[in-house]
Amino acid sequence: MDFETFFSTELDALRSEGRYRVFADLERQAGRFPRATYHGADTPREVTVWCSNDYLGMGQHPDVLAAMHAAIDECGAGTGGTRNIGGTNHYHILLEQELADLHGKESALLFNSGYMSNWTSLSTLASRIPGCVVLTDALNHASMIEGIRHSRAEKLIFAHNDPDDLRRKLAGLDPARPKLIAFESVYSMDGDIAPIAAFCDIADEFGAMTYIDEVHAVGLYGPRGGGVSEREGLSHRLTLIEGTLAKSFGVMGGYIAGSAALCDYIRSFASGFIFSSSLPPTLAAGALASIRHLKASSSERERQQDRVAALRRRLDAIGIPHLDNPSHIVPVMVGDPVLCKKISDDLLARFDIYVQPINYPTVPRGTERLRITPSPLHSDADIDHLVSALTAIWGQVGLKRAA
Amino acid sequence: MDFETFFSTELDALRSEGRYRVFADLERQAGRFPRATYHGADTPREVTVWCSNDYLGMGQHPDVLAAMHAAIDECGAGTGGTRNIGGTNHYHILLEQELADLHGKESALLFNSGYMSNWTSLSTLASRIPGCVVLTDALNHASMIEGIRHSRAEKLIFAHNDPDDLRRKLAGLDPARPKLIAFESVYSMDGDIAPIAAFCDIADEFGAMTYIDEVHAVGLYGPRGGGVSEREGLSHRLTLIEGTLAKSFGVMGGYIAGSAALCDYIRSFASGFIFSSSLPPTLAAGALASIRHLKASSSERERQQDRVAALRRRLDAIGIPHLDNPSHIVPVMVGDPVLCKKISDDLLARFDIYVQPINYPTVPRGTERLRITPSPLHSDADIDHLVSALTAIWGQVGLKRAA
Repeated sequence: MDFETFFSTELDALRSEGRYRVFADLERQAGRFPRATYHGADTPREVTVWCSNDYLGMGQHPDVLAAMHAAIDECGAGTGGTRNIGGTNHYHILLEQELADLHGKESALLFNSGYMSNWTSLSTLASRIPGCVVLTDALNHASMIEGIRHSRAEKLIFAHNDPDDLRRKLAGLDPARPKLIAFESVYSMDGDIAPIAAFCDIADEFGAMTYIDEVHAVGLYGPRGGGVSEREGLSHRLTLIEGTLAKSFGVMGGYIAGSAALCDYIRSFASGFIFSSSLPPTLAAGALASIRHLKASSSERERQQDRVAALRRRLDAIGIPHLDNPSHIVPVMVGDPVLCKKISDDLLARFDIYVQPINYPTVPRGTERLRITPSPLHSDADIDHLVSALTAIWGQVGLKRAA
Repeated sequence: MDFETFFSTELDALRSEGRYRVFADLERQAGRFPRATYHGADTPREVTVWCSNDYLGMGQHPDVLAAMHAAIDECGAGTGGTRNIGGTNHYHILLEQELADLHGKESALLFNSGYMSNWTSLSTLASRIPGCVVLTDALNHASMIEGIRHSRAEKLIFAHNDPDDLRRKLAGLDPARPKLIAFESVYSMDGDIAPIAAFCDIADEFGAMTYIDEVHAVGLYGPRGGGVSEREGLSHRLTLIEGTLAKSFGVMGGYIAGSAALCDYIRSFASGFIFSSSLPPTLAAGALASIRHLKASSSERERQQDRVAALRRRLDAIGIPHLDNPSHIVPVMVGDPVLCKKISDDLLARFDIYVQPINYPTVPRGTERLRITPSPLHSDADIDHLVSALTAIWGQVGLKRAA
């Protein structure tokens, strides 16, 4: 087999479908978010980022950066090992305690990414609990899908955010079998939010474990940033809460929080945890400072909500269609992959605005979109500029306006 | 099902087997490697680390730390996104160019860990190349095993480092089927090295792709630290070279290097790449500085080899059994999990020496060991102290000496 030809042919197919991805070569500028230097053109130039998952701009917060600098000076760069073999650093211990406290749980466990925390935790639980069956929301993230798939446990997909369908699926199962219900709180692409209380009630009824992914919610919801589960007073009813340090907390890494026995179990049996070099102390220290800040301060969350509402009002006023939802995510719907990429390219080339086009497989075909994430750092002038750019482009490409 | 009881019972089983793991809560001290502060006892105290995979101490190199500080000041903490959605940073581009150059390849691609690079790349290739069959060395790392398993491709395990067995397995296959041969260069636990040239010859004979994991070799072997494949002039014969930034390069992250089409293919189709937030600029900048330094400087590699040889001579002189191998890894064999942990505990409690016990499932039962990794930073006095501590303990626990 000619492997090179195979790879090239497959890439050509992506290109012809309009879904070949090109990296935007950016250099975010600490102290000047949401500005970044764009290196993808002939000469670098300043652009405004409108699609960051550093939702609150904590990636440039002085406390976070100071903590990162201090940890490098104290401990150096990497840890030199896995958590079990020389790679546990005191900052990991402090961060895990902080995360357990954030979610009102006994314990927490760090991973190198949210993808790894989902993939590893779900595959370990579902494969090792004898006879386990997984009930999984139809729109769960790729990392959850792959973790469940890897476990080879039986899997039942319930309709997205639908408690009735979840109950129907559970009612059809042997009551004696161990059951795990896996879902997210805020869904990244549509910005809708799960009926967590209803899911917990059903879990109690059928004796199931609950696994919630709060990666798009931690830091953003709840009085201390403990996520939607904290806001709704439900943390104690969830068996496992999974989160990330790479979005609202502005750094990198993933984690789970739960009972001491649950975290210790995953710590002891999960291949993806046991065999990964651990997070550098500087990242753990930065995340620790970020979480502590957002536990005490709600001003970033309030300002973000204000910016989200302001952008929505402006889009409504000019008839740019966006998906209504109760979260901070503003999906501007295009519905065509080629057009979606063209609008994104125009925004960058002509208006110095960076919003990545979101195409299949990240969203279903026909629902291609610009996923806009207003932050506390976007000014009124930034919103004006974005709205006028979208207005200009919308007319030129011939897309319909909302009524 | 009572999940809490299940978890506790499974953990008790680990404890009774002597393989329950306890994290060593350490704080490595930049500028003072291999010293670290041990926080696991009543009062923190200084210990000497003898089991780090920061093999050359690059985790405290001034160039690396300066680059990390500078990137935090320039770009902040995290990237705020996946590589495709807002999370590509200019340092990623520079680092991927540097890695491609290190291995003499057209291209390279970063991941958040070596585990992810192996798991994602192998699962993507083996699942997406139609009819692919994977030939995998019997002692491949967990991340490779899990990636191959996840692909659900047909898998044939060949005897460890055995070209004859590999050829036999290949000869039994349909010549038309795509074949992928996956192996490591330096095996982490025994320290033995693969017959890479022989494997490449066989791959040519059968038209197979070659996938090599060089995580325990990059930075350490070859005139520029390009791994065993560079040392032996074989880089160009390997389809894909996988490596880590977390061991000799002293930071964190994983990568692959190969043809432009191969890297672009994995970039475009690999779930674990597409859906992970990217490496923080500070880590990419630190790794970049580390690789550049080790490309130009061989003194760290030479000093490490000198320390390895010195320790081996001293162990031989007092009859402490260690596995002979052609690498930098010195496995001191114990052969019993409880004893292995006891020796490690004694070294830490009585001699302020930290060497993690390596038990099943990291190594086969009956081959439990202390895996010692001398670095350029271990002094003659450090070696003296380690050897005298092992001498004292060896007699007390009643282990046999070598002839």
